[in-house]
Amino acid sequence: MSIKEKILQIAKQAKFASRVLANLSSRTKETALLRMAEALRANKERIKEENYKDVEKAKEKKFPCAFIDRLVLNEKRIERMILSLKEIAKLEDPVGKIESMQKRPNGLLVGKMRVPLGVIGFIYESRPDVTVDASALCLKSGNALILRGGSEAINSNIILTKILNEVLGEARLPVGSLQLIKTTDRRAVMDMLKLDEYIDVIIPRGGESLIRTVAESSTIPVIKHYKGICHIYVDEEVDLKMAEEIVFNAKVQRPGVCNAMETLLVHKKIAPDFLPLIIERFQKAGVEIRGDEKTLNLIKGIRKATEEDWSTEYLDLILSVKIVKDINETISHINKYGSHHSDAIVTTNYEKSRKFLQEVDSAAVFVNASTRFTDGGEFGLGAEIGISTQKLHARGPMGVNELTCTKFIILGDGQTRE
Amino acid sequence: MSIKEKILQIAKQAKFASRVLANLSSRTKETALLRMAEALRANKERIKEENYKDVEKAKEKKFPCAFIDRLVLNEKRIERMILSLKEIAKLEDPVGKIESMQKRPNGLLVGKMRVPLGVIGFIYESRPDVTVDASALCLKSGNALILRGGSEAINSNIILTKILNEVLGEARLPVGSLQLIKTTDRRAVMDMLKLDEYIDVIIPRGGESLIRTVAESSTIPVIKHYKGICHIYVDEEVDLKMAEEIVFNAKVQRPGVCNAMETLLVHKKIAPDFLPLIIERFQKAGVEIRGDEKTLNLIKGIRKATEEDWSTEYLDLILSVKIVKDINETISHINKYGSHHSDAIVTTNYEKSRKFLQEVDSAAVFVNASTRFTDGGEFGLGAEIGISTQKLHARGPMGVNELTCTKFIILGDGQTRE
Repeated sequence: MSIKEKILQIAKQAKFASRVLANLSSRTKETALLRMAEALRANKERIKEENYKDVEKAKEKKFPCAFIDRLVLNEKRIERMILSLKEIAKLEDPVGKIESMQKRPNGLLVGKMRVPLGVIGFIYESRPDVTVDASALCLKSGNALILRGGSEAINSNIILTKILNEVLGEARLPVGSLQLIKTTDRRAVMDMLKLDEYIDVIIPRGGESLIRTVAESSTIPVIKHYKGICHIYVDEEVDLKMAEEIVFNAKVQRPGVCNAMETLLVHKKIAPDFLPLIIERFQKAGVEIRGDEKTLNLIKGIRKATEEDWSTEYLDLILSVKIVKDINETISHINKYGSHHSDAIVTTNYEKSRKFLQEVDSAAVFVNASTRFTDGGEFGLGAEIGISTQKLHARGPMGVNELTCTKFIILGDGQTRE
Repeated sequence: MSIKEKILQIAKQAKFASRVLANLSSRTKETALLRMAEALRANKERIKEENYKDVEKAKEKKFPCAFIDRLVLNEKRIERMILSLKEIAKLEDPVGKIESMQKRPNGLLVGKMRVPLGVIGFIYESRPDVTVDASALCLKSGNALILRGGSEAINSNIILTKILNEVLGEARLPVGSLQLIKTTDRRAVMDMLKLDEYIDVIIPRGGESLIRTVAESSTIPVIKHYKGICHIYVDEEVDLKMAEEIVFNAKVQRPGVCNAMETLLVHKKIAPDFLPLIIERFQKAGVEIRGDEKTLNLIKGIRKATEEDWSTEYLDLILSVKIVKDINETISHINKYGSHHSDAIVTTNYEKSRKFLQEVDSAAVFVNASTRFTDGGEFGLGAEIGISTQKLHARGPMGVNELTCTKFIILGDGQTRE
């Protein structure tokens, strides 16, 4: 069978399975998810063995440390996957929920029922724990799932989906419910992106070039997960200690992820008090600072930020710093240079907190908290299949609700239109 | 200025205006919409005069009657536009509404705030009343709007947007709030579809080839409004008189629209009682019947339906008829051949009504009512910018809510991530 034929077969099986999954009882899905958690626990050693192969190969190929770190499935990560399965099991089933039923003047009852999207194609890079999160979210939301993971995680993904599929088999669910594309040939992705007859949505998660390629080649609707150029604005009216902790956390706690801060904006009145303090702390933690003209006047020996810095996602221990004259300049800067991902204000002023929440055009807007919280688990969604940076359909962390859509249901007693 | 430069300028102005529109008070929007209603009433004669030019030109060009009918702005249609402005004015403002605020274990409050999409590009064919509906829905939902209507309605669209813009001017709203592309050059559309930096969503409404061209050329997300192959299933357990009225209404009341019935499915047990009766009534009303083998056995002298008939949107006084053995065959047929638009069951049986509602994968699923009700006004949305046949973001009639998206808002008191 050619790759093209194989992918077509996978897509057809998924479509068939999606009709069955859409009508499962909440209890069946919950039981299967809890069984999956048990199965992962019972198979920890198998998982570690297969993952070890991937990790060794990545080391041979001299991948960067951060990359290898993301690939590893250790005890802690396996336990986290188990926890996430249990949390998703306990979530309310979104499917079949009826929202906002209203009665029309002619007696028609018009409501919206939440239903699965159908078949999800998920293209992601090399974090194998995402395989389990995505599988659990799609089962809970009644969707069939086609997984295409990074080639470096192939052994881990094969064993994980094998274990999950054993549980689905015991529950007599169709084989198309959860499928992994096992070939690492890139043509498989290109073939998949054209099967709009069978696949309802493509979710790419990974580097910018992957997402751009997918978006350009796909005839299936794509939910994009682009980069995060996140800002924190420290207002003049502020608890300086709180600002320091939030800002430090957002940059340093995990700099290589999309919700880490890349640009710090500071009100000019507070800058002389705040910046020397926080910049010293940053520099001790190994953070390189790139400042605007005004920051350079205040702090000696730091590099000047170029126009390009304001729109760069460093994903590293680098921070651009700008002194602003007020909240309006702040909001303009964020809406112009940001990537509409996650942005925060630290302030004690009520009006400014409201203005910031309202006017910053981003997927997640924070008051007095670190941008690092943009995450499905932290937002109470159990897990996430990704963080959407687009406006249509889903914005921010995507959980089970975002993997559904609605249909109108209309209950009549013989109404006809005049 | 070249067309390309002109379109770019329009898009930039719209982007600028969208920031202002997003933050308007509900009262400002309501007042402007009511003023628009008054302005249309005060300018009826100007509207009719300009519309007359379009209609005369269409007659010269020998366009079909149905086309010319859609183009006409008579007293009744202008009054309907006025009514629709008033209804949209009274709707609840969706912008700024906060949904589902929850408290997380660490004390963070996580909620979703409804916000405008930003800039809408609306490409539509020759019904000028749609110009007013779209303008009103976009203003209410805080979006800037770029209109590109059919060239045959150009004079009508120019006068309508001129009147609406006079009101926006009095309210001191930016010029980019509501713009009509006045050139009828097709390159203008192609240029617009590439301006993803400024336009957030493209909504094409019209024939299938228009929508397909737009979807293929656009780098901006598109909400598609495809055809309607709508079904009605008459169950064996049924009020025959109710079934007759619903089925007749869905085919004959206005056959040229997307929510008219194209295929009638009848349970085999009721077919001998129901079909002779309804087919005679259809034939008297000039409806051509195309039946499957079993229907042909029951009713003499009708044409045989081909495989192609089951997936054809006639938009005309033609109906395909099929006798089915049960509700499962019905649901399979609809999900296979339908266009996932609007489908209905007529039954007195509770379980079958629930099964149909749950398993038919369409934007609007009806029990005991005509499919002709799929419409923003009828569903209580005030009006509609179109009827989405896709699953992502919006499905079915799109009103003000569907022209918004959500952003997460997070209220903390100093939380940082461990």
